[in-house]
Amino acid sequence: MNHSIIRYIIFRVLEFQALFLLLPCIVALIYREQAGWAYLAVMAGCFLIGWIGKRKKPVSNVFYAREGFVVVSLSWIVLSVTGALPFWLSREIPNYTDALFETISGLTTTGSSILSDVEALSFCNLFWRSFTHWIGGMGVLVLILAILPLAGGYNMHLMRAESPGPSVGKLVPRVRHTARILYGIYMAMTVILIGLLLISGMSLFEATTLAFGTAGTGGFGVLNSSIGSYSAASQMIITIFMILFGVNFNVYYLFLIKKPGSALKNEEMRYYFLIIALAVGFITWNVRGMFDGLAEAFHHTAFQVASIITTTGYATADFGTWPVFSQTILVLLMFIGACAGSTGGGIKVSRIVILFKLVKYEISHLMHPKRVTQIRFEQHVVPKEVTRAIQVFLISYLIIFAGSVLSISLCELDFTTNFTAVAATLNNIGPGLNLVGPTGNFGVFADPAKWVLMFDMLAGRLEIFPMLVLLTAPVWKRG
Amino acid sequence: MNHSIIRYIIFRVLEFQALFLLLPCIVALIYREQAGWAYLAVMAGCFLIGWIGKRKKPVSNVFYAREGFVVVSLSWIVLSVTGALPFWLSREIPNYTDALFETISGLTTTGSSILSDVEALSFCNLFWRSFTHWIGGMGVLVLILAILPLAGGYNMHLMRAESPGPSVGKLVPRVRHTARILYGIYMAMTVILIGLLLISGMSLFEATTLAFGTAGTGGFGVLNSSIGSYSAASQMIITIFMILFGVNFNVYYLFLIKKPGSALKNEEMRYYFLIIALAVGFITWNVRGMFDGLAEAFHHTAFQVASIITTTGYATADFGTWPVFSQTILVLLMFIGACAGSTGGGIKVSRIVILFKLVKYEISHLMHPKRVTQIRFEQHVVPKEVTRAIQVFLISYLIIFAGSVLSISLCELDFTTNFTAVAATLNNIGPGLNLVGPTGNFGVFADPAKWVLMFDMLAGRLEIFPMLVLLTAPVWKRG
Repeated sequence: MNHSIIRYIIFRVLEFQALFLLLPCIVALIYREQAGWAYLAVMAGCFLIGWIGKRKKPVSNVFYAREGFVVVSLSWIVLSVTGALPFWLSREIPNYTDALFETISGLTTTGSSILSDVEALSFCNLFWRSFTHWIGGMGVLVLILAILPLAGGYNMHLMRAESPGPSVGKLVPRVRHTARILYGIYMAMTVILIGLLLISGMSLFEATTLAFGTAGTGGFGVLNSSIGSYSAASQMIITIFMILFGVNFNVYYLFLIKKPGSALKNEEMRYYFLIIALAVGFITWNVRGMFDGLAEAFHHTAFQVASIITTTGYATADFGTWPVFSQTILVLLMFIGACAGSTGGGIKVSRIVILFKLVKYEISHLMHPKRVTQIRFEQHVVPKEVTRAIQVFLISYLIIFAGSVLSISLCELDFTTNFTAVAATLNNIGPGLNLVGPTGNFGVFADPAKWVLMFDMLAGRLEIFPMLVLLTAPVWKRG
Repeated sequence: MNHSIIRYIIFRVLEFQALFLLLPCIVALIYREQAGWAYLAVMAGCFLIGWIGKRKKPVSNVFYAREGFVVVSLSWIVLSVTGALPFWLSREIPNYTDALFETISGLTTTGSSILSDVEALSFCNLFWRSFTHWIGGMGVLVLILAILPLAGGYNMHLMRAESPGPSVGKLVPRVRHTARILYGIYMAMTVILIGLLLISGMSLFEATTLAFGTAGTGGFGVLNSSIGSYSAASQMIITIFMILFGVNFNVYYLFLIKKPGSALKNEEMRYYFLIIALAVGFITWNVRGMFDGLAEAFHHTAFQVASIITTTGYATADFGTWPVFSQTILVLLMFIGACAGSTGGGIKVSRIVILFKLVKYEISHLMHPKRVTQIRFEQHVVPKEVTRAIQVFLISYLIIFAGSVLSISLCELDFTTNFTAVAATLNNIGPGLNLVGPTGNFGVFADPAKWVLMFDMLAGRLEIFPMLVLLTAPVWKRG
């Protein structure tokens, strides 16, 4: 394990954190808020430590997958621990565990909150809360790769460890250019969304923060009613953009380089749209009696389905009061999640599709043991290592899921609350059902349970392995 | 697909069904019950059809794994459909869907009931209900293999398809002798159990029926209070024997041939006992306030843990009122299940252990990509096909689980009821939580939901693949 390079990158991450914190400082200046001092102090601290620490250059450039995992998980922990300080120092979230929960929930684009009254926060805190979604959506190390001239062959390992999906590939030969293209698309789409939300009648502050939450598929809002009190036009824009940010960004790149044919052939995207269509259809039919007419039922259903499958977690209606059949569909969507290579969470459509194909393949193998077939996805044969990694991902996922439900059940809340709280955090969605439903919040849990759920949020966003690797002994040995 | 041999074996299964039905006929004769006529009629029908049908000998002896799967799943369906007739014809379960549910629940050793008043049944119906547990516990085709001189090399495929566990092996070179040894141990342990229950104060009828339910890890009782109203001594005997019937029968064979050393080295059994000890410890501590003293808490906890992990489903207390932490442990035990090669259901301890080892192996592989290691279980390297089959089992299991929860949610019962109803049937346990808890019953579901749960019970007992193979097109084509 090459500790020196890990240390070096972590210090650079701290420098970037200082850069990120500059924005809420500016917001505080505009609104003349006291809480701005907390941001200024933490920003200065991060910058100083990062600037001094990075002067010790790494002694070796050796960088394998394991170093990638360790750097990514440590970076996210450092970003969370420092990012939580302003909430705590400004006394607006007086308990540090709660502040950390809120920050991890933001960075991992989960959107689960411990706050019962969001509107009591100052503007700079609200801004930072939403901005963490935007940072976490595409990933901080991908941003560093896009900007810094990091030498050595370790770029790909970093990118793989931070980006969601079973097989992360490069769009163009150089990782750095790939990272730039991804961030370029991400920024452009965010700016377009802000523009549309402004046109639909939102203030600049609302448009910006909600666009961050939508782009990162996060889910933090700035009103206690989430998205419920905005105009139908705003809600529709957000519905469409949630779905768009849940699509694999490779698709947009193919459109950019004028290959719409290949873009539309994307198998994962097709299944993703199919699942959305089916879910919207069934739920609209199921809840039609609860709204004034089919159009309104469709409007709220589409919003909720988009919000859950992309793991955003915004709400316009309390789906906790919907029929159990609709709730069960939403719970299943929680697990499926969005496309690989998007900002969404969950298991990912591609993994689900490949798992289904694996079962179909095995049954056909049982029927015809001598026939040689292979599993194909996106017009290619799926390599053995990829199917193996997906299966091990699923198993670890289930183990973490079961362990989390068991440990938080010590709080003695009901089974549905516990089950959906873990589903909502491990899949980076936000709200669950019952006590943690759209009208509840995660403040009902005791602090130890919050730590379990924080681990789940990080494990969910980083797709488990980086967090598990961090827990193994060799990482901590000198050498 | 060799249809002629499948047809032949199914007719022989019908003959065996006639033999099984003889016993409730005798019980009806002893208690002079009207319902006996229903058994006599069905017995005669099964015997006649089987006897005439089997005269057409199979045209070919070709028999592969796929034929094994099809024979097993069809046999179980035929046994269920005919076994349900007496309940229905005797008018004691007037709805045929309910009668079929009860029979499948019996044969698959699930023990979920649609009856709210068990004590209203006649003795012969109660006896048949419990006896189906005993038949299903070790399996009907294993019994046929033990008795009939079936020629050809297909015995192993039949045994593998019906016996639970990731890798079914032969104890002795000949499959027929293996089947005889297994049934010999099974019968001897059942007789010992009946004897002990008689000594503890039960009547012969109670001792026999409850021994059937315990041996098959089924769970049907003859009183509405399940096991709650029997003496503490009876309850303790049942606790111990539930655990014993959940152990891999290979262990008993090793004791029989005087190799206690190898028997005690059985890795799966060790993990099984470890899980039981941990669960009993945690739950006893968690529920200590609900009982008079630690001894009583331990007594009820041990019974409940044994009942759930072996997937029997007997109850002495309403664990629906226990703390959520204890309930969550019980729900996890539902999924783990008993040992492979036992009469218990669930995913099986060996599969769980191998899945954990797989994750550990992958993480260590990430850390040391060049180090060559292998997964070992029971002192042997686990073959690639076995780990692959276990993973595909897990995936199919999850797909069926999710699909079942979704479809039965159309009944609009609560999420915990739906979730635990599927967990209880797919793992062949019996009771779940809430409406299907120890004091409730499955009559709350509409008929279509009962059909889904019936499929789950069969898929659970036959470990999914036989049922899935039956749903594929080639099975139904001529050729």
